[in-house]
Amino acid sequence: MPHIQLPEGVPGIRSLAAYRPDTGKFLYEWAQTLLRGGDSPLSEAERELIAAYVSHRNECTFCMSSHAAAARFLYKEAGQTVDIVLNDYRNAPISEKLKALLTIAGKVQSDARTVLDEDVALARSHGAVDRDIHDTVLIAATFCMFNRYVDGLATITPPANDLDTWNAMGERMGTFGYVPPR
Amino acid sequence: MPHIQLPEGVPGIRSLAAYRPDTGKFLYEWAQTLLRGGDSPLSEAERELIAAYVSHRNECTFCMSSHAAAARFLYKEAGQTVDIVLNDYRNAPISEKLKALLTIAGKVQSDARTVLDEDVALARSHGAVDRDIHDTVLIAATFCMFNRYVDGLATITPPANDLDTWNAMGERMGTFGYVPPR
Repeated sequence: MPHIQLPEGVPGIRSLAAYRPDTGKFLYEWAQTLLRGGDSPLSEAERELIAAYVSHRNECTFCMSSHAAAARFLYKEAGQTVDIVLNDYRNAPISEKLKALLTIAGKVQSDARTVLDEDVALARSHGAVDRDIHDTVLIAATFCMFNRYVDGLATITPPANDLDTWNAMGERMGTFGYVPPR
Repeated sequence: MPHIQLPEGVPGIRSLAAYRPDTGKFLYEWAQTLLRGGDSPLSEAERELIAAYVSHRNECTFCMSSHAAAARFLYKEAGQTVDIVLNDYRNAPISEKLKALLTIAGKVQSDARTVLDEDVALARSHGAVDRDIHDTVLIAATFCMFNRYVDGLATITPPANDLDTWNAMGERMGTFGYVPPR
């Protein structure tokens, strides 16, 4: 049960946005800018995957399940890649650049001070540019916020194995992006 | 040295806001809403203190030093309270309500899933209402983002003991709030 009085039956971040609309509106716009903004060298699918990976590391069921579903939807026929990445990204069928960026994202999740020049150099050697590095760090940092916000207030989370619910959510996020609840 | 090419000599979050202005503008507005927005039951000084406390736990020198300085400025003659809190908040001269909220903030910083009903009940027994709990969790979560963003890209940070610089920054933050760099 949530730690504060939230709209009944509304899950995760949506219930928090309804509780405090001024910050809620901001957070939806933030997700839209960061995960859908047109000028990132990272694809929408890659950005959702980084979000899901960080949320997985933080063991945040709500954010992990929803953003993994969004990433699966956006990866289309390669959707199963998402689950392989979450289990073991180093051996997943993704680019070496994305693997190097996921290493950086993982370090940002646990202790951002541990991101080394070598980690960044490895990503660059596989084609990453400044904006790849920047956006990876900012997405990872952002999900350390969302994960904590959702779990710190014990918001309602559908069961992790309720794939119908998550897939519907992922398809909506992949199709319409982040639109504040009305 | 920063991991990406940032404006030279500009420290911390300001250099990142200059690097990517669209997200930078958002982050300043976010800090302003969260730390200065008028309808929180927490004072501006208390909100800055929670920000400094979480940044201290994350060992983020930039955010800790700047927000501690802002909190000192806002606490006015009781400014030294801030340093006592950062060292040992349980024995600091602050309200039992604020102590209970700092306990929640600390749990959000380390693992938000560990915030217990008892933690929230204790805060309520000392007068905390839903918005106190909510805003505490959201500020703590937010600084887990800012700390990681600043440190994950190794932005420039003045030395922790350069108190003149931090105090000037804190006075500016306490007086003018969060205004995006031009």
